Amino acid sequence: MTKGRLLYEGKAKKIFEILENSHQVLVEFKNSLTAFNAQKKGEFESKGRLNCQISTLLFQALAKDKISSHHHKTISDHEMIVDRVEIIPLEVVVRNVIAGSLAKKLGRTEGEKLNSPLVEFYFKDDALADPFVSDDQILAFAWATAKELEILKAQALKINQVLQKIFLQAGILLVDFKIEFGRNSKGDIVLADEISPDCARLWDLKTLEKMDKDRFRRDLGNIAESYQTVYSRLKEVLHG
Amino acid sequence: MTKGRLLYEGKAKKIFEILENSHQVLVEFKNSLTAFNAQKKGEFESKGRLNCQISTLLFQALAKDKISSHHHKTISDHEMIVDRVEIIPLEVVVRNVIAGSLAKKLGRTEGEKLNSPLVEFYFKDDALADPFVSDDQILAFAWATAKELEILKAQALKINQVLQKIFLQAGILLVDFKIEFGRNSKGDIVLADEISPDCARLWDLKTLEKMDKDRFRRDLGNIAESYQTVYSRLKEVLHG
Repeated sequence: MTKGRLLYEGKAKKIFEILENSHQVLVEFKNSLTAFNAQKKGEFESKGRLNCQISTLLFQALAKDKISSHHHKTISDHEMIVDRVEIIPLEVVVRNVIAGSLAKKLGRTEGEKLNSPLVEFYFKDDALADPFVSDDQILAFAWATAKELEILKAQALKINQVLQKIFLQAGILLVDFKIEFGRNSKGDIVLADEISPDCARLWDLKTLEKMDKDRFRRDLGNIAESYQTVYSRLKEVLHG
Repeated sequence: MTKGRLLYEGKAKKIFEILENSHQVLVEFKNSLTAFNAQKKGEFESKGRLNCQISTLLFQALAKDKISSHHHKTISDHEMIVDRVEIIPLEVVVRNVIAGSLAKKLGRTEGEKLNSPLVEFYFKDDALADPFVSDDQILAFAWATAKELEILKAQALKINQVLQKIFLQAGILLVDFKIEFGRNSKGDIVLADEISPDCARLWDLKTLEKMDKDRFRRDLGNIAESYQTVYSRLKEVLHG
């Protein structure tokens, strides 16, 4: 495998060409951490590694439950080979418990359980600060077709079911998470991007202590330790 | 008909009890004008009258097209008797052309025509500044049932069709409008509130000059004159 040129650099990852295979790319997880549409910036040394390792565990677990992702192979502690996909420009958020922007928007208390999981879509556009969009807006602006929207919702809910169960076994409450999907070279819609404490709210089941990027957003300290705990507990559950 | 106590005072209307009939209320249209969730305030003398007269014309025209509203009878130039309804806490917005908050949110130019009309919902809550909500959020928080949501969308699109045609005849482009619905004493969902230049974007078909509350929001002047022109043209088309 020969690492080619840098195709794209995002806030948390770099994507490189793979010379031998145009249908795959190499993802390098960075140590940088951003919040509030990159207005707040930080980093910690183990972040790239931990997010790569956590994502790897979760992509593998999802594959066992027949949920296909772009993940092909993790080749170092902070690098994975994935299918080259065309990202659907929607952040798909699944919520089990009210927190973050939803709590603020509706004047609700963080921690209130939803009767059933709620799927939300945000249009991926940094310049517009990823605005919340409705199904009808998604169709009107052709960001996805009606059929694709149906697939995204169904997949998101299925992924939530699998993840909730795993995190519960790890003593972690899966409050909410953000995922992204892409179309691969066969035209299939697959889970892409990453699943990590950077894009999920994870609360300790007993203490309700936050173990995710809110520790950075809200200056709660012990970020690296929390991400490490999430990884250790997931590893114990999935490979223990 | 005996006017009873004040039941509710909103930003643009007062609602009074009618002593002889508990299923109806009296709506008095005020001259005050507010924008940006009441952070900007104004008034002009003919406003209550014009909005009452314009709403009357449009409710009557819609009734001819079998779209039932709460409107029963207009009893003075600024007062109407309407069915007492339980308002569904959703502002229903129909857009034909991109403008206002949608243009801002998506970084689009005002005036771009949509391929088909777009229906949006905003949760009616002044303290929260009426946040934009998705269908799934409406269902999750039980602001309306799935069946009701379907009715709201279908009715909104039907109302748009009728209004577009009328405004076109009046030489006015119906860019977008906000309506509200309520459940009457029989449990039926009917169009409620008002339809006026306060809650619609109306552009002159030839000059594209704004003839609605944007003249107030954006300090464009000639507010009363514009509302008067809208009324005169609609009257000509509908009663001419």
